[in-house]
Amino acid sequence: MEQGDYSGSKAFPPLKNDTFLKAAWGEVTDYVPVWCMRQAGRYLPEFRETRATQDFFATCRSPAICCELTLQPLRRFPLDAAIIFSDILVIPQALGMEVTMVPGKGPMFPEPLNEPADLVKLRENVDVTQELAYVFQAIMLTRYKLKGEVPLIGFSGAPWTLMAYMIEGGGSNTMAKAKRWLYQYPVASHKLLKILTNLIIDYLVDQVTAGAQALQVFESHAGHLGSKQFNEFSLPYLREIAHQVKEKLKASGLDQVPMIVFAKDAHYALEDISESGYEVVGLDWTIQPKVARERVGKKVTLQGNMDPCALYAPKDKISETVKKMIEEFGTQRYIANLGHGMYPDMDPEHVATFVETVHTHSRQIRKNE
Amino acid sequence: MEQGDYSGSKAFPPLKNDTFLKAAWGEVTDYVPVWCMRQAGRYLPEFRETRATQDFFATCRSPAICCELTLQPLRRFPLDAAIIFSDILVIPQALGMEVTMVPGKGPMFPEPLNEPADLVKLRENVDVTQELAYVFQAIMLTRYKLKGEVPLIGFSGAPWTLMAYMIEGGGSNTMAKAKRWLYQYPVASHKLLKILTNLIIDYLVDQVTAGAQALQVFESHAGHLGSKQFNEFSLPYLREIAHQVKEKLKASGLDQVPMIVFAKDAHYALEDISESGYEVVGLDWTIQPKVARERVGKKVTLQGNMDPCALYAPKDKISETVKKMIEEFGTQRYIANLGHGMYPDMDPEHVATFVETVHTHSRQIRKNE
Repeated sequence: MEQGDYSGSKAFPPLKNDTFLKAAWGEVTDYVPVWCMRQAGRYLPEFRETRATQDFFATCRSPAICCELTLQPLRRFPLDAAIIFSDILVIPQALGMEVTMVPGKGPMFPEPLNEPADLVKLRENVDVTQELAYVFQAIMLTRYKLKGEVPLIGFSGAPWTLMAYMIEGGGSNTMAKAKRWLYQYPVASHKLLKILTNLIIDYLVDQVTAGAQALQVFESHAGHLGSKQFNEFSLPYLREIAHQVKEKLKASGLDQVPMIVFAKDAHYALEDISESGYEVVGLDWTIQPKVARERVGKKVTLQGNMDPCALYAPKDKISETVKKMIEEFGTQRYIANLGHGMYPDMDPEHVATFVETVHTHSRQIRKNE
Repeated sequence: MEQGDYSGSKAFPPLKNDTFLKAAWGEVTDYVPVWCMRQAGRYLPEFRETRATQDFFATCRSPAICCELTLQPLRRFPLDAAIIFSDILVIPQALGMEVTMVPGKGPMFPEPLNEPADLVKLRENVDVTQELAYVFQAIMLTRYKLKGEVPLIGFSGAPWTLMAYMIEGGGSNTMAKAKRWLYQYPVASHKLLKILTNLIIDYLVDQVTAGAQALQVFESHAGHLGSKQFNEFSLPYLREIAHQVKEKLKASGLDQVPMIVFAKDAHYALEDISESGYEVVGLDWTIQPKVARERVGKKVTLQGNMDPCALYAPKDKISETVKKMIEEFGTQRYIANLGHGMYPDMDPEHVATFVETVHTHSRQIRKNE
């Protein structure tokens, strides 16, 4: 498979299970589709084995391993979608920043952006198609290996979330350094956000070219912004991404794919997010399903939002929680998921209960309708 | 001053500025009172100097130093309240847990609670009056030294927030260990929360006995809970604390003091929180003032909620933000504050602008009414 050769994308095996895509587009489904954020993860023994000796970002740069990791949860659970194994920080890497993954600690940038003058360090005119070819190869390979079982989701971090990492140099409880930029250097902040937005648009379009059948944009750090900062520094870029990706897919003669926006903890902006050009709005677990439905109306599909920690509960409690969640969201225009990614110490059998209950209970409700 | 000797409490200098207390009780005020969470903090050079060579918890155990640190911000800014310098983790310490403060990292418990069996390690029948006498001495001393300038606020961490620290062993992005307890060991979780609640009640009553004129309860980790977990593991204990403190003050023949609850990121529970027995509800910056007013009605005073990072902005921008905030909250039943504590790299001059703008702009509005 040559780098940049995606001509085979039309020849992928036909899709057998389109429930996730139907729900995403707002079409009627027989049951509620389900997938889990970070479903390809350390909670699976086979994941730990595959990744055992390798550096995290070396893994991300190996299409064959990314494909294997993406497929692992599908072999265990009847999930309705796969999501390509990768990381949101490949974008800062493409911009020339060094990022390492410190086991047990998370990502670390040895040289974060401290002041606006540091923006000159970022590589200009980045050719995403070349630079992140390993992601596109992983997507294409996975599309083949999936044999049409379920659709494959591509993804990217959103501009503010990536900016926050690039300035903080890693995780942070307050994101105070990155937020200082927003308040102190609004012009430089917008400059950086625009650089990221342009790159993300190309990145997402290339993922579709390579075979991604849906796209999720993670604004994981939205909760650190209030309404005003979100409206200035996040929302316009989220909108731009949705709009431009659709335009570019159209211009390239590619089929449109449903787009999901997940702005974690952005309870204060739910209405605006639901009108930002995405077909699906992901919700964290602090938002009550009925409140979400009331606030966004029926214009979008909702995705989420069980507290991932609810997977620590005994199986009968998990079933109970899932049933209540489905009853509150309803079976239509809804994709079941967690409200955040899974953690390494979670029990795969509990994930099985989660997935199974979504399917059986939603089918039951449909039958009784 | 002997340990446990608070008989002098009636002889404190008379209060000169009662604007904060009036606002807290819902009485009419001429202007909006203001204080800042973590106003006694590392952003002040004199604070760093006073604390320079000393271990953090040794500082907490020194009434004279706590008094000095409490008074420092009052010498710089015309704040309408002082808050005693201390830490919420003195309660786990009173229960026999070791806690150290790691500079630049935060609190660390070398032996956190891992499993319910670890609850036996906690000291039983803790006599808060004896065990935390150093806090009460600090409060009494500070009341004298304040000379009635402004009221003195006492505080405590709320049960869930303290429980989370005791299990996580420090800060955490997910609180997944502590939340695992809630889902896996609900009985043990309630047992621990009840132990903490009883201690907190005594602790707060003793603070009033020592001279505290208002009390704030910090549920700093509320945002990690969803609505269901909050209703089961946080709200009942917050209610119990408000109710019991008031009952015990009454039984002891002490004057009631206004109580403030600050459940950070608990946007999903604002209505319930406003009916939980507290006179004042603290808000983080992700909640829009007008939305908060609509949701809680006029039954409580609101406190907050400028994004602390807004203090990084230039002074004219700070003034603009403060003005808008006051206009949205209104001048009555409102105490201006930040939506979270200040950070060490903030500029004291910007705090001055914040405080000054609250006063001048709210007086201006009152004049035009």
